[in-house]
Amino acid sequence: MTESQDRQITAVGNEMSDSFLAAKQRSDNTLRKIEEDPSKFTMLTGDRPTGRLHLGHYFGTLKERVAMQNKGVNTNIVIADYQVITDRDTTEHIRDNVMNMVLDYLAVGIDPTKTMIFTHSAVPAENELMLPFLSLVTEAELHRNPTVKSEMEASGHALTGLLLTYPVHQACDILFCKANIVPVGKDQLPHIEQTRNIARKFNERYAKKHHVFPEPSAILSEAPEIPGLDGRKMSKSYGNAISLSATAKETEKLIKKSQTDSERLITFDPVKRPGVSALLTTAGLVTGRDPAEIAAEIGDGGAGMLKKYVIESVNEYLAPIRARREEYAKDLDSVRDILHDGNRKANEIANETLDQVREAMGMMY
Amino acid sequence: MTESQDRQITAVGNEMSDSFLAAKQRSDNTLRKIEEDPSKFTMLTGDRPTGRLHLGHYFGTLKERVAMQNKGVNTNIVIADYQVITDRDTTEHIRDNVMNMVLDYLAVGIDPTKTMIFTHSAVPAENELMLPFLSLVTEAELHRNPTVKSEMEASGHALTGLLLTYPVHQACDILFCKANIVPVGKDQLPHIEQTRNIARKFNERYAKKHHVFPEPSAILSEAPEIPGLDGRKMSKSYGNAISLSATAKETEKLIKKSQTDSERLITFDPVKRPGVSALLTTAGLVTGRDPAEIAAEIGDGGAGMLKKYVIESVNEYLAPIRARREEYAKDLDSVRDILHDGNRKANEIANETLDQVREAMGMMY
Repeated sequence: MTESQDRQITAVGNEMSDSFLAAKQRSDNTLRKIEEDPSKFTMLTGDRPTGRLHLGHYFGTLKERVAMQNKGVNTNIVIADYQVITDRDTTEHIRDNVMNMVLDYLAVGIDPTKTMIFTHSAVPAENELMLPFLSLVTEAELHRNPTVKSEMEASGHALTGLLLTYPVHQACDILFCKANIVPVGKDQLPHIEQTRNIARKFNERYAKKHHVFPEPSAILSEAPEIPGLDGRKMSKSYGNAISLSATAKETEKLIKKSQTDSERLITFDPVKRPGVSALLTTAGLVTGRDPAEIAAEIGDGGAGMLKKYVIESVNEYLAPIRARREEYAKDLDSVRDILHDGNRKANEIANETLDQVREAMGMMY
Repeated sequence: MTESQDRQITAVGNEMSDSFLAAKQRSDNTLRKIEEDPSKFTMLTGDRPTGRLHLGHYFGTLKERVAMQNKGVNTNIVIADYQVITDRDTTEHIRDNVMNMVLDYLAVGIDPTKTMIFTHSAVPAENELMLPFLSLVTEAELHRNPTVKSEMEASGHALTGLLLTYPVHQACDILFCKANIVPVGKDQLPHIEQTRNIARKFNERYAKKHHVFPEPSAILSEAPEIPGLDGRKMSKSYGNAISLSATAKETEKLIKKSQTDSERLITFDPVKRPGVSALLTTAGLVTGRDPAEIAAEIGDGGAGMLKKYVIESVNEYLAPIRARREEYAKDLDSVRDILHDGNRKANEIANETLDQVREAMGMMY
């Protein structure tokens, strides 16, 4: 490597970490303000209904959503059903996936009297915002989004118009309900930046005096990434994910067949021993203990004893969540009512926001 | 030019004219079928509300719309207000432009009891179709559209996301009301092709048994292009357009100051005498006479006599249109009611179509 290449890479590295540090600092400031007065904040989060939610989702975002809700933040969850077709040609099982997603939310403690749960396909006025918002971004900005590219490559599909514009659709999700905080992972920071640009440009062009949209702040997740049982990213498609909706028996089976190594002495070493360490991380999360301490306790008890400990602690942790889920699943009509109620509320809010947008743009005839 | 380059260009030329001839043939077939049973056809046309409609619009499309309406075709007109911001940063005067557009429609004989007039910004369920439709086109297809490129270059702006995706939004305009015929100029044939692709792909993926959308046919306009008073394309921004809403006095002034030449003998020669010939073409259109015959009649009467003839014949032709316009303009509340009524109807139709789309995609929760 020549010196100049080296310097270049270092510069890029610094730039990235500088902007990340700045984002982290802003996020910490926002978190402080939330503690002072949660009622001033409206949060939007959401999920693509492509499968069941698992432990990774739980520790990565669901737990935090419940905490925000219970703090008194105005919380909103979009089930992003149109995003299912950004990179696939079918909506197979979507109704089932959506209903199960609502069940998962209720099971982990999302309270529909405090949190609005909705599917964006049910909210036309929200989707209409795509039109004015698309006029506020350039094609170059759409292409610059790093997630769009990596998701396109991962999908193995040609880049669809919907995948290219999905950060703009996310801006619709966030801005129609005037969310001013959005919890995100590091890789989604550019999306929030695009949403902020759209809000700012709209206000500048059409609503200078009375801003229609807030410029939302990203809240960077503090959650450690929870690995799948094989040490890779937890994902249903890898078969390494513990679904919230799995039974204790299914969980036991999945953990039992997870790959470890032949070393009897259990140690926490994510690089050299991904399987063993993933089990330790999982056990650590559900027990609140340090993975290394659990490893020391098991000592040379081997993978069998480790797995037994993980199975027991995971099933114990998930027991109340699964019990609540079962209760709700007995009365699917009520679950449907909860979603209908969320969609009705989302439509009210979206209609009001769209009227403000039309007013600002002079499109009231 | 090398032989190979020459051959290449010829090949491209043949290809274009072949596909144009095929399109013309399909268009003629469709026109025959319309004559047989107009009630089987639903037509969508529309305009961007960026200014007043003029004689070019009248002979290019408005006259044909009225004829289709009176034949018994189910006619629909979209005032494409979101398309105003595909290439500009403001919606200034949009309310005024929209109201004047409705007045122009009524003045030329559009009958709101037969034709639905609506603004697409008022129809959220129509706009929601953008989401599933964007999933049916690739980014490459969006970029391939020749009009998008030329309009971007003409605007002098960066390509916005809205301009890039506007053929998809046109597909929403066309398909939400299940239009099966769309009158277009030659340059818009690729848009209709994209709409047909979207309809076909949607039906294939989600509605194999009971197709939701028709694949609309393009009707190629027979109308000769009417030049502006200076021989260039008629456009408000060139100051060479006779607005339907202009008074007889304003029309006289505009025609009087149009540029001709010093040759006294009036002849019809669009290439060598663009100004004189544009005047002759205009007079020909409004009188139904052959421009060359008018030229011969005026002979060496010069530009003054020609202009006098054009002023008189244009004002005579437009007199009943302008009289009707004045009548409607006295009662703007009724005009507003007509638009509200069209928007209400469009919402009913769009809601029904969106429900069919949700049903087909399994998005009924």
